[in-house]
Amino acid sequence: MKKIPIIKSRRLRSTPYTDRVEANGVSGYTVYNHMLLPVSFKSIESDYEHLKKFVQVWDVAAERQVEISGKDSAKLVQLMTCRDLSKSKIGKCYYAPLVDGQGFLVNDPIINKLAEDRWWLSIADSDVIFFAKGLAAGNKFDVDIKEPNVNILAVQGPLSDDLMAKLFGEEIRQLKFFNFKYFDFKGRKYFIARSGWSKQSGFEIYVEDDSAGQDLFDYLFEYGKEFNVRAGCPNLIERIESALLSYGNDFDNRDNPFEANFDKFVNLDTEVNFLAKEKLKKIKNDGIKRKLMGIKIDHNKIDMYCEKTLFDNNNNVVGYVRSATYSPTFNQVIGIAMINKPYWQSKDQFKIEIEEKIFVGTVCDLPFI
Amino acid sequence: MKKIPIIKSRRLRSTPYTDRVEANGVSGYTVYNHMLLPVSFKSIESDYEHLKKFVQVWDVAAERQVEISGKDSAKLVQLMTCRDLSKSKIGKCYYAPLVDGQGFLVNDPIINKLAEDRWWLSIADSDVIFFAKGLAAGNKFDVDIKEPNVNILAVQGPLSDDLMAKLFGEEIRQLKFFNFKYFDFKGRKYFIARSGWSKQSGFEIYVEDDSAGQDLFDYLFEYGKEFNVRAGCPNLIERIESALLSYGNDFDNRDNPFEANFDKFVNLDTEVNFLAKEKLKKIKNDGIKRKLMGIKIDHNKIDMYCEKTLFDNNNNVVGYVRSATYSPTFNQVIGIAMINKPYWQSKDQFKIEIEEKIFVGTVCDLPFI
Repeated sequence: MKKIPIIKSRRLRSTPYTDRVEANGVSGYTVYNHMLLPVSFKSIESDYEHLKKFVQVWDVAAERQVEISGKDSAKLVQLMTCRDLSKSKIGKCYYAPLVDGQGFLVNDPIINKLAEDRWWLSIADSDVIFFAKGLAAGNKFDVDIKEPNVNILAVQGPLSDDLMAKLFGEEIRQLKFFNFKYFDFKGRKYFIARSGWSKQSGFEIYVEDDSAGQDLFDYLFEYGKEFNVRAGCPNLIERIESALLSYGNDFDNRDNPFEANFDKFVNLDTEVNFLAKEKLKKIKNDGIKRKLMGIKIDHNKIDMYCEKTLFDNNNNVVGYVRSATYSPTFNQVIGIAMINKPYWQSKDQFKIEIEEKIFVGTVCDLPFI
Repeated sequence: MKKIPIIKSRRLRSTPYTDRVEANGVSGYTVYNHMLLPVSFKSIESDYEHLKKFVQVWDVAAERQVEISGKDSAKLVQLMTCRDLSKSKIGKCYYAPLVDGQGFLVNDPIINKLAEDRWWLSIADSDVIFFAKGLAAGNKFDVDIKEPNVNILAVQGPLSDDLMAKLFGEEIRQLKFFNFKYFDFKGRKYFIARSGWSKQSGFEIYVEDDSAGQDLFDYLFEYGKEFNVRAGCPNLIERIESALLSYGNDFDNRDNPFEANFDKFVNLDTEVNFLAKEKLKKIKNDGIKRKLMGIKIDHNKIDMYCEKTLFDNNNNVVGYVRSATYSPTFNQVIGIAMINKPYWQSKDQFKIEIEEKIFVGTVCDLPFI
């Protein structure tokens, strides 16, 4: 792949941590929610090996928040997601697919319930704020919708508990998965959730004050020396091995939640009111004709810039790969693909072209085993 | 500025022309509507000089279309913009600021009226599709909203009429500014508008068939040799000299249309119904306290990654620069800034820090003269 530089501007927003990330040797950027998001430091492979053994500090400010508050805020948030939030609790995080009026996916945020009338949607890469504003205006809801100045630092990796306990005290080890709480460090309060875009365990710190976040970044490196801390970022290999889905890569606004395997977050047998509820019932009753599955290919390299088509031996379309990478753990290429129904049996074979050669691969269930 | 590569993925969409753009030596990318958009080829300065003398072919597929069709489509499109579209005509393009329920800007598309019940919003960098979908669902409008597979090629520069006439016939010279029509070339039909994101004159070709667009790209270079055609892209220097505003750079969802100088597109004395009409009346009556103006600084370099603050001699805030560049024409730095009301007199002075030195500049009216 030819390396072409990204040209910065105000529109491609830097984060409060960008200077520090660059001082730590970021070697590639993507853009996510109109903001710079690091993709690699030493290399994706080296970052991966380190993430699985030690602890990393990630600038994931690009996970922007959409704050919805006011009298009708719970009604609006519920309208946007097919997950039943009627029993949701303050202090908890909810992974919640958002769907539009036709039942297609808009985003898959983590919804943080701050109060009965105040919510933060921690979003993937699409402008949820304008979806919320359109719905609020159309329904004449009494809500306030804004993007607050929140810039997340994630601490990820098997030693993240040790590092975080050294700063915030032993109590943080008790914080449960997808719960959040305020913790103190050097006289400042930080909103911390046990969450993050890896399966190596860790935390996300929702920083509301830029200078507090910059200080924290520096302290995490100072306190983290004994844990071999490094700057990192969401890692392509780790996230595919863990089957963590990415909006825009693995699924998008042309897919419905059943096709993306979100069945357990589509709560049709409830009283709550959300968009496309009847359409989703019909989709479920009719049955879907394609869904996201894993694929494995005995090869050591794949570059993904767009969907790649999978064919069977008669050149019928099996499906489309949407993300893929060489996996050191499986010692083959693994990927996430939208697979047509006739090929849903694990171990069904397909052909794929990679760099002008044909390879044979197999379909598999997710998560990868 | 440190050059850090952009890492491609399916989410940062390539265009049908990406291979050709890279073969033509693209040297920098930005991301716009989740898609790759070239920023420079030889250099921004060299591209600029060429654009003002000859003709360029631009891959501006990142100017995505939001297609709104169906019975209530005109009602929805009007609801989204404060510009009165009640007398709009098929075959014409309308520059139209979109505002949310609070009167803040969402985008500034060109709206192409294809039929009474079919519209293309050719958008700047924000997900207008989700704003439209939210409004449609909230208002129970009978509309179909989608992003069609349209990938614009722009032909820009003083020789663009000559090149386009060589392909599409002399008739194309008669196409008026902000009008569109279908033209034939080698048995294929192309939707062509006289428009584009430069003031060097030119056309935008809304390509609906990828291979037709790729062929056209190649023919434009073959036929364009005598006109010294080159690959180009929206040019930072040219667009600032021409005071063409950029959503996300010069204005965003925290600004209202009066602050962005869109007064003539805010049609409050009409019968048509659009979002925040009453709020915009109040904003107009109260009067705004800041607005976009030009600035000039006697210096030869400025890098803009975020807003830069302007101060007066007593260190009060004069305003914030949002875009700026060295201009070869004015032989100084020029920029677009949000200026507070006490400093609206042309030639009001300010201080600005550039690379740790203090410079003195002056406020000026737009367009630059």
